[in-house]
Amino acid sequence: MISTKLTELLGIDHPVVSAPMGSVSGGRLAAAVTQAGGLGLVGVSYGDPTFIDEHVAHAAERGGVWGVGCVMFTFDERPGLWDKVLGYAPPVIALSFGDAAQVRRYVESAARSGAQVVVQVHDTEQAATALQAGASVLVVQGSEAGGHHKTQSTLPLVPAVLDITQGTVPVVAAGGFADGRGLAAALALGADGVMMGTRFAATEESLATTGFKTTLVSASTTDTVNTRAFDVVRGIPWDTVYQARSVGNDFTRTWTGRDAELAARRADVEPEWVAAVARDDTSQRAMFAGEVLDLVQDIQPAAAVVRGTVAEAEAVLARLATLTAS
Amino acid sequence: MISTKLTELLGIDHPVVSAPMGSVSGGRLAAAVTQAGGLGLVGVSYGDPTFIDEHVAHAAERGGVWGVGCVMFTFDERPGLWDKVLGYAPPVIALSFGDAAQVRRYVESAARSGAQVVVQVHDTEQAATALQAGASVLVVQGSEAGGHHKTQSTLPLVPAVLDITQGTVPVVAAGGFADGRGLAAALALGADGVMMGTRFAATEESLATTGFKTTLVSASTTDTVNTRAFDVVRGIPWDTVYQARSVGNDFTRTWTGRDAELAARRADVEPEWVAAVARDDTSQRAMFAGEVLDLVQDIQPAAAVVRGTVAEAEAVLARLATLTAS
Repeated sequence: MISTKLTELLGIDHPVVSAPMGSVSGGRLAAAVTQAGGLGLVGVSYGDPTFIDEHVAHAAERGGVWGVGCVMFTFDERPGLWDKVLGYAPPVIALSFGDAAQVRRYVESAARSGAQVVVQVHDTEQAATALQAGASVLVVQGSEAGGHHKTQSTLPLVPAVLDITQGTVPVVAAGGFADGRGLAAALALGADGVMMGTRFAATEESLATTGFKTTLVSASTTDTVNTRAFDVVRGIPWDTVYQARSVGNDFTRTWTGRDAELAARRADVEPEWVAAVARDDTSQRAMFAGEVLDLVQDIQPAAAVVRGTVAEAEAVLARLATLTAS
Repeated sequence: MISTKLTELLGIDHPVVSAPMGSVSGGRLAAAVTQAGGLGLVGVSYGDPTFIDEHVAHAAERGGVWGVGCVMFTFDERPGLWDKVLGYAPPVIALSFGDAAQVRRYVESAARSGAQVVVQVHDTEQAATALQAGASVLVVQGSEAGGHHKTQSTLPLVPAVLDITQGTVPVVAAGGFADGRGLAAALALGADGVMMGTRFAATEESLATTGFKTTLVSASTTDTVNTRAFDVVRGIPWDTVYQARSVGNDFTRTWTGRDAELAARRADVEPEWVAAVARDDTSQRAMFAGEVLDLVQDIQPAAAVVRGTVAEAEAVLARLATLTAS
């Protein structure tokens, strides 16, 4: 057992959080992580009501310390969805990708619901905003992450944010973590836990398709690219300060860096792309994955990831204790 | 004292290495780091013979476990310089930025001189090449670094390389480290020490100019940019897979991403730029610095950096030992 301010605040056994990945982190994955003693988050990123009624409901039924992850700017566009999420009374609400006003509004509302409120930040300015808004936990996500992220790397960003939080709230490090060595490193930096995405996408319980999971195991870190192409083809109005890291394929090679042209040709391109995604065509679909791909070599049960990560981190901490001679 | 395979192999007290930064890591800085118990490296990057006779000579006179850092592709262009370096019998030779053939050739020659041979790598393929060439130590440098680097980040790259080296040689993590939290995190990942650049550029002994040092203290991580402009204006034939992180200024804002145009206009632009650098004009000069800038708040004596980093890492290791309950 590794005990930190995060495990104490949330009442969980292990300082391991599964990222709320859209189309990947469903109710089964979140529940499995929670049952294994971590914090499982359902990713309701783009706020589909059917998804919420299936997956948030599943996690809620399984109980324990579970949560939902919401992309603030997309919830803003869909009135009613936020109340639908709150209706399931998630013990933890994780908020990401919003401007300062959205952070203040959603943190306040989530806190009023009785949830612990986790806010993901990507730089020190966002960290200060989230703290001021009353976040109970910060997730500090670096550019090593899969999916959407900003430009600063986790390793130097986490201590820079810790110099601002000064221990007032637990800090979870995200982006670049896939095993117990990473968890131990995060704790060494001063963080209170890790959030892992790619590692949990490559689990039995994740909603990643067969083609996506197979790619996660076979592809390498150097196969990943940062792109806006999947946002543009879907017409999702992401702030352009965020790019998304995906395993590169024919679609990213064709469209990355040609945002304006893709936006102009969306009416032609999108239907074909949607059809390709529907048949799990890995040459076209988004396969968000982080720089940890070289460390992900198999599909595991989510509980095995939680337990393996903690056991490895415990072994690392025991080894570190032998390095100092007085 | 923190004892690792690196400290044991080299016979040094502390697993802290100062990066061999061109125009920054002179003999005084290297000697100060070595005297404080770390490994000090003189940066003879572009192989100026006068610089070698002043700075390598100074480090050699001060003695202890010191070394030189050589950029392989530039030495290839300047016959005689390599033998000049070997003439000072550095106990450690650090090699960076060469193709596989250069790595093999310089590692063999350096080893024949009796030096411990350190090879810097930026991906797993380069790591395999360096191992096969017979490197005694690998430096794994991620994209958080200041100056020249490749694209992968330190945090996930270090464990990926360790999965290849399998403990056969000490591994030094570089890029993103500026304090004892970082050293402890590197050890947690499985590395045997850290190399720090920016932190040592901001020391009393570094050759960084007043303008550069002042900027290192005042600028933030978000002020840094990756650029090839300084390579192009100087006409140095860097492989374009490497970019250099510098504090952004008027020069980078004008020329970054316009390599071909800058190359074509070099005859006009270079003389003015050289004159600006000569008068320490921070709006024009290169000020290589890493993503750790937010963690660098002062100019310190180099020995204080070494000792402070180790003392902080020791405190972190002591704290980590309290996190596990059986």
